[in-house]
Amino acid sequence: MGKGITSRSEDYSQWYNDLVIKADLAEYSAVRGCMVIKPYGYAIWERMQSVLDARFKETGHANAYFPLFIPKSFFSKEASHVEGFATECAVVTHYRLKNDGSGQIVVDEEAKLEEELIVRPTSETIIWNTYRGWIESYRDLPILVNQWANVVRWEMRTRLFLRTAEFLWQEGHTAHATREEAIAETEQMLEVYAEFAEETLAVPVVKGRKTENERFAGAVDTLCIEALMQDGKALQAGTSHFLGQNFAKAFDVKFTNKEGKLDHVWATSWGVSTRLMGALIMAHSDDQGLVLPPKLAPVQVVIVPIYRTEEEKSKVEEYVKQLMAALAQLGVRTKFDDRDTQRPGFKFAEWELKGVPLRVAIGARDMNNGTVELARRDLQTKETVEQAGLPDRIANLLTEIQDSIFEKALTFRDEHITKVDSYEEFRETLETKGGFISCHWDGTVETEKRIKEETKATIRCIPLDAIDEEGVCIFTGKPSARRVLFAKAY
Amino acid sequence: MGKGITSRSEDYSQWYNDLVIKADLAEYSAVRGCMVIKPYGYAIWERMQSVLDARFKETGHANAYFPLFIPKSFFSKEASHVEGFATECAVVTHYRLKNDGSGQIVVDEEAKLEEELIVRPTSETIIWNTYRGWIESYRDLPILVNQWANVVRWEMRTRLFLRTAEFLWQEGHTAHATREEAIAETEQMLEVYAEFAEETLAVPVVKGRKTENERFAGAVDTLCIEALMQDGKALQAGTSHFLGQNFAKAFDVKFTNKEGKLDHVWATSWGVSTRLMGALIMAHSDDQGLVLPPKLAPVQVVIVPIYRTEEEKSKVEEYVKQLMAALAQLGVRTKFDDRDTQRPGFKFAEWELKGVPLRVAIGARDMNNGTVELARRDLQTKETVEQAGLPDRIANLLTEIQDSIFEKALTFRDEHITKVDSYEEFRETLETKGGFISCHWDGTVETEKRIKEETKATIRCIPLDAIDEEGVCIFTGKPSARRVLFAKAY
Repeated sequence: MGKGITSRSEDYSQWYNDLVIKADLAEYSAVRGCMVIKPYGYAIWERMQSVLDARFKETGHANAYFPLFIPKSFFSKEASHVEGFATECAVVTHYRLKNDGSGQIVVDEEAKLEEELIVRPTSETIIWNTYRGWIESYRDLPILVNQWANVVRWEMRTRLFLRTAEFLWQEGHTAHATREEAIAETEQMLEVYAEFAEETLAVPVVKGRKTENERFAGAVDTLCIEALMQDGKALQAGTSHFLGQNFAKAFDVKFTNKEGKLDHVWATSWGVSTRLMGALIMAHSDDQGLVLPPKLAPVQVVIVPIYRTEEEKSKVEEYVKQLMAALAQLGVRTKFDDRDTQRPGFKFAEWELKGVPLRVAIGARDMNNGTVELARRDLQTKETVEQAGLPDRIANLLTEIQDSIFEKALTFRDEHITKVDSYEEFRETLETKGGFISCHWDGTVETEKRIKEETKATIRCIPLDAIDEEGVCIFTGKPSARRVLFAKAY
Repeated sequence: MGKGITSRSEDYSQWYNDLVIKADLAEYSAVRGCMVIKPYGYAIWERMQSVLDARFKETGHANAYFPLFIPKSFFSKEASHVEGFATECAVVTHYRLKNDGSGQIVVDEEAKLEEELIVRPTSETIIWNTYRGWIESYRDLPILVNQWANVVRWEMRTRLFLRTAEFLWQEGHTAHATREEAIAETEQMLEVYAEFAEETLAVPVVKGRKTENERFAGAVDTLCIEALMQDGKALQAGTSHFLGQNFAKAFDVKFTNKEGKLDHVWATSWGVSTRLMGALIMAHSDDQGLVLPPKLAPVQVVIVPIYRTEEEKSKVEEYVKQLMAALAQLGVRTKFDDRDTQRPGFKFAEWELKGVPLRVAIGARDMNNGTVELARRDLQTKETVEQAGLPDRIANLLTEIQDSIFEKALTFRDEHITKVDSYEEFRETLETKGGFISCHWDGTVETEKRIKEETKATIRCIPLDAIDEEGVCIFTGKPSARRVLFAKAY
């Protein structure tokens, strides 16, 4: 704390790492690729959970909990699913340790599992195996269930929040009587995610559809929201999958429909994870530290007293007590930083680093003048304002800051969607400007792969609002019916 | 649903299993010993979490998240800790599966971990290894952190909620500068648990201290709350451990105290788990199903309409709409069961099985008379009451039911604490009456173990309010300074 962080222009990647560590959000643990989410970081994640969970419940979903472990054989049942996850699975093979006699603790070879267990990388298989017992007729449908859980994907190259071996997420798993209903659910949950990203995270997103190449392993159709970070790279912030009858077929889940006929059940799954913490950090923060949208800030207003004498101190404290009571009435989360071990300048820097949206500083002179100093984290502006009416002014400012952070990110994002019509222009834009590149593509996996090999850019999505427009693929010259969005991505 | 459950007198154990399954609380999964917590069961657990989490925060704690996996070597660092947990650990040995060429998915032997990872059975070791990096001076203390997480203990004999290989819990882990402060924290959290058990779960508990034999592996002192189930068996409902400097020494966590000297940090840990679901079910429920205390009931009031004609139906529905709005104003969680696929009698039985505290039934005649039928789940009483003033009556009744359920359990518990002064009396009480047996014990592990071998009863705790009383051990005749509580236990 108190030490500077690398600037974005100097080294964006190092800036991100410094920020996560120095703002006390998370750190690497002793276990390769696994992170410790520290209290300040976790408090932000809890706010995300609380907003999302309320939306899930408003849209009719209930939470449940399914096992951490998945029998290996379950994976093999859905062919593309196992292909997608097999190479990054933590595998439990034994259920006991023992003392080897010389004081060493070793795995007890006699306690070997008959069938290995996989630590869930996602829960479609164990859940659909369970749903088989829950569903007989259309009267048992829909099942609208969500789970908040930890999952493990053995990533080789990890980054705090963005890509870790273990991460926290929610995974919705729904079962429906008709294809139409399942598709409507997939679309509804994408909409919930998009609203959440824009209204709560203040991160503008493009809603779109993944190409076959980027689709979830086992899905018929994957919808996604894609956000843009300040370095011009995209970040997939949430996905909602229409799974068709794939998992119902793999796990033999049938129901009697209204006509009395047996049919396989239709499925969706959808999830967002602690990756959103990475998106939040990279979308808004600056060289001084985090910039938190007020809706997610664990502390929205920090109050720093400035005094030299005990008399000045008690005068300030008396006022602060009233101010905090008034702010609490308005639902504003406030912290009074009355540590006497640190100087005001140190406190200013610390709360700036931690992204607290508003800072109120108040000293003896302010008390005489009936004023306070109010500083906005997002714009780094300061002004001296009247104490009269301050609580309402603060509440209004928090709303204004939330909007302003979103608008800034939106402007940046919109300025970084570039239409190109040739591969040369594509490569140049990618190298010099970054961001999303809107262009024509011939619709083949092959072309997408070749472009990825040559440029590291992938198709982030086919925007849902893409207009029909005849064109030719920038790479092959073959015909194309609409533009897609390419970008380098996290 | 609709099918009866085994009665308690017939087979208590089967009654419990039937209830958990038929009230849709949980079920076994395809993974040995692991459960699926179903939406209705999970909704109760969520209410428990929400009340506890608020209390943890009020007492100054923040949530964080630590890795699921613990390197094997960490376990060996605290000798009694590894002894306590080594024999029930799920061990991750590999990080990849592969296709063996013949279409079979097998563990990839080339992806063997250098050091095995243990799926956390509890997190002291990984957390204290982390705290080493967080603590330098007394200014960094106390650390007051809690984690909501899943843990795995490879139990051979499992029962839904009571003993499962994977379960959900919270584990608090705090670090302090002094022994006194750590002891005060241990006691405070026991008090939080006791209050929660009595005020929210409506389960009376005895606060006590574990004997050496029953102490947490690695603790200096384990405090606990012990509850009594209707079959006369005890259930440990929560524990709070004073860990002394054991983990700080094992993980080399030192701090500079106010005098500028280096010392090891003092620790506590404390936890409650989904086991509380078992306690809740077994403490209050009856042969008709669950009995839920209103504070934990996902649905506090269910409204069942009774009608023959569409006209009657719409008249009833109009009234119900107003009633529900009025109840919502009072913060009452209400469900209108307007399914037209089921008859009222079926609905009555279903909600009774699910333990909804109050049922309102309303038909055409009630509409003419300005009345409703109100049924209490706990007492199984029904009365016809005026519609006028109904919302307030319901809100008051919910409070009364919460108190009444607690009083009933308290009376039962108090009637089942038996003072005995001979081993013969001890054995007879244990076999005929069950419950807690208050008697003298000579304070040795040896005697406790022999009594356990002969009777299956263990010392549940030395009550914190035990009075000094000279006596002789019922087993050895040796002197004893106070009575302890024995019982058979879950």
